[in-house]
Amino acid sequence: MQTIKFKNKPYLLNGYSIVGPLEGKGPLHNYFDYILKDDTLKEKTFEKSERKLLQDIIVGAIDKSGLRVSDIDFFFGGDLLNQIVSSSYTARELGIPFVGLYSACATMAESLALASIFVENGLANNVVAGTCTHFSSAERQYRFPLELGNQRPPTSQWTITGGGASIISNSPSKIRVVAATFGRVTDFGIADVNNMGAAMAPAACDTISEHLKNMGRSPKDYDFIATGDLGKLGSEILIDLMEHQKLVLGKNYADCGCMIYDKTERVFMGGSGAGCSASVLNSYILQKLAKGDFKRVLLVSTGALMSTTTSQQGDTIPGIAHAVELEYINEKNDNLKDKELKQKVVTTKLNNKKKENK
Amino acid sequence: MQTIKFKNKPYLLNGYSIVGPLEGKGPLHNYFDYILKDDTLKEKTFEKSERKLLQDIIVGAIDKSGLRVSDIDFFFGGDLLNQIVSSSYTARELGIPFVGLYSACATMAESLALASIFVENGLANNVVAGTCTHFSSAERQYRFPLELGNQRPPTSQWTITGGGASIISNSPSKIRVVAATFGRVTDFGIADVNNMGAAMAPAACDTISEHLKNMGRSPKDYDFIATGDLGKLGSEILIDLMEHQKLVLGKNYADCGCMIYDKTERVFMGGSGAGCSASVLNSYILQKLAKGDFKRVLLVSTGALMSTTTSQQGDTIPGIAHAVELEYINEKNDNLKDKELKQKVVTTKLNNKKKENK
Repeated sequence: MQTIKFKNKPYLLNGYSIVGPLEGKGPLHNYFDYILKDDTLKEKTFEKSERKLLQDIIVGAIDKSGLRVSDIDFFFGGDLLNQIVSSSYTARELGIPFVGLYSACATMAESLALASIFVENGLANNVVAGTCTHFSSAERQYRFPLELGNQRPPTSQWTITGGGASIISNSPSKIRVVAATFGRVTDFGIADVNNMGAAMAPAACDTISEHLKNMGRSPKDYDFIATGDLGKLGSEILIDLMEHQKLVLGKNYADCGCMIYDKTERVFMGGSGAGCSASVLNSYILQKLAKGDFKRVLLVSTGALMSTTTSQQGDTIPGIAHAVELEYINEKNDNLKDKELKQKVVTTKLNNKKKENK
Repeated sequence: MQTIKFKNKPYLLNGYSIVGPLEGKGPLHNYFDYILKDDTLKEKTFEKSERKLLQDIIVGAIDKSGLRVSDIDFFFGGDLLNQIVSSSYTARELGIPFVGLYSACATMAESLALASIFVENGLANNVVAGTCTHFSSAERQYRFPLELGNQRPPTSQWTITGGGASIISNSPSKIRVVAATFGRVTDFGIADVNNMGAAMAPAACDTISEHLKNMGRSPKDYDFIATGDLGKLGSEILIDLMEHQKLVLGKNYADCGCMIYDKTERVFMGGSGAGCSASVLNSYILQKLAKGDFKRVLLVSTGALMSTTTSQQGDTIPGIAHAVELEYINEKNDNLKDKELKQKVVTTKLNNKKKENK
């Protein structure tokens, strides 16, 4: 089945996010762990800045969880740069076994899903899943040299500078991973690279409806459903497509790309990039979950899978969306869990003493 | 732990390989499922040829296993083109839920390892893992336009046209997946993109020694140890590095890049590319395993994780290697397995009859 339900429900121990100055001026500014003053991060090229940004995010997530790098069994990640170099070079600095991924802007949910599978099945104790993007490196790789100052069409989006990472663990926290759905690649024939929201919306619709069906839920069962970076137009298309399936996305639905920027900013349809859902998940969404303001959340990161070469060769843009369902553990269960944990610690200590005595 | 040991040992049901005309003239020509006469596959661009090649490989593997596309739960794959477009567009054609990966030329082992984890843990019945490369698309993306006819330095390698895919399944076959090790990213400071064997050898050494340590084995315990695409120089460096750790790679060791071409061909240090270990695994190695000529094999796909941008910006080349251990099921176990299977079929039939009678 396309949806994987977790019996043990691995814990999401902590999330960490860093964003650039523009994103830091947006409505979520109080939720981010760190807001860059200088988006070059004192590096000589924007590609090296992006790499430094991801490194800071991963290390930040590990630190915030009270862990050391050596406690992390695997690093799941990818990014938008050709050959996912930000992630690979970050993995080189960290020395953690590396599972390199590519799902364009759907990477946050893909890495979270695989990370959860590893912890769920006892293959790891602590893993880190994360990604980021940098406006300036994405812009010059996918579009035009920044110096040209090209005009942008109204349907375009703004690749965010920022990202986030989560620690999935078998150590208790207030947030658990309930299920994950890996998406199918869909293509409704959009060829305009300045309208990626429209290209990705059908994939989001396919994955959300598949997830709901397999979980036996309706959109109402979620306190919050977040798509990755469909932007204003793309999320309107998604709402329409869902309505055709008699699934109503109401006030509990928002797109991370629409949430991240202030409405007065000239970012056209809103934010995009792998870092978009990564930074919003690992700030606003996780904090709301940890407090119990959200009891159940569906994160649906969305990716457009074209390259500059496929666009130049006249191909249309395939989209993908991966979904991860998260839940807040209510206090009752939580106390129970704490008791279980204490019991486990006591048993382990007793066993260790027995061993020593032998 | 970096090495994942499979208790249920998922089956490798079947492998399928296609190679180009030059590779088809090599010493392994009798083992490939299909040898292309025309490496354009009648497509208008080499990027579209590569995509068609991967599609043919994936469908070939499914067909050869007696399955339909709808029997496959997930497709694990990636390739060398920017944004892994060969895999993404193949996933679009197939409609199978897609887990996009990037590990450069280590993709075959990475996809095989993740695929095995899914089947091992009951998350899927049948999955396909595969990758390919095309000389002409890789050459013009990573190096120079083909029309330039540039000279190549003696340490360079030749990206193969070809690839392979495996079906990992819970249906019995003669080959099982025993364990997998996800590699760490290592970098010994090689910056020469025409000497990738040297850049990847330390990663291969790290992963092999880690795998051997965690499995409690020595190189002698394997009938065959295959690295992905270190080439002649890279595999000599690996042998040296291993000797420093007092691990001797003997006659049971070979590099897929050295195996694939005839010695008279002007391919310098040998073959490379994600398709290299993919095509050799899914032809020669699997056929030898299925016959019992090899009882235990370690596949170590090796990847160089740079991009043209990192090279232009003066970065050195990080390497990665992922390892998958495969074993032949000897006749005794095999018969037992067959009996179990027959028993299972009988039980299922009985249960079905009971249901009908109710």
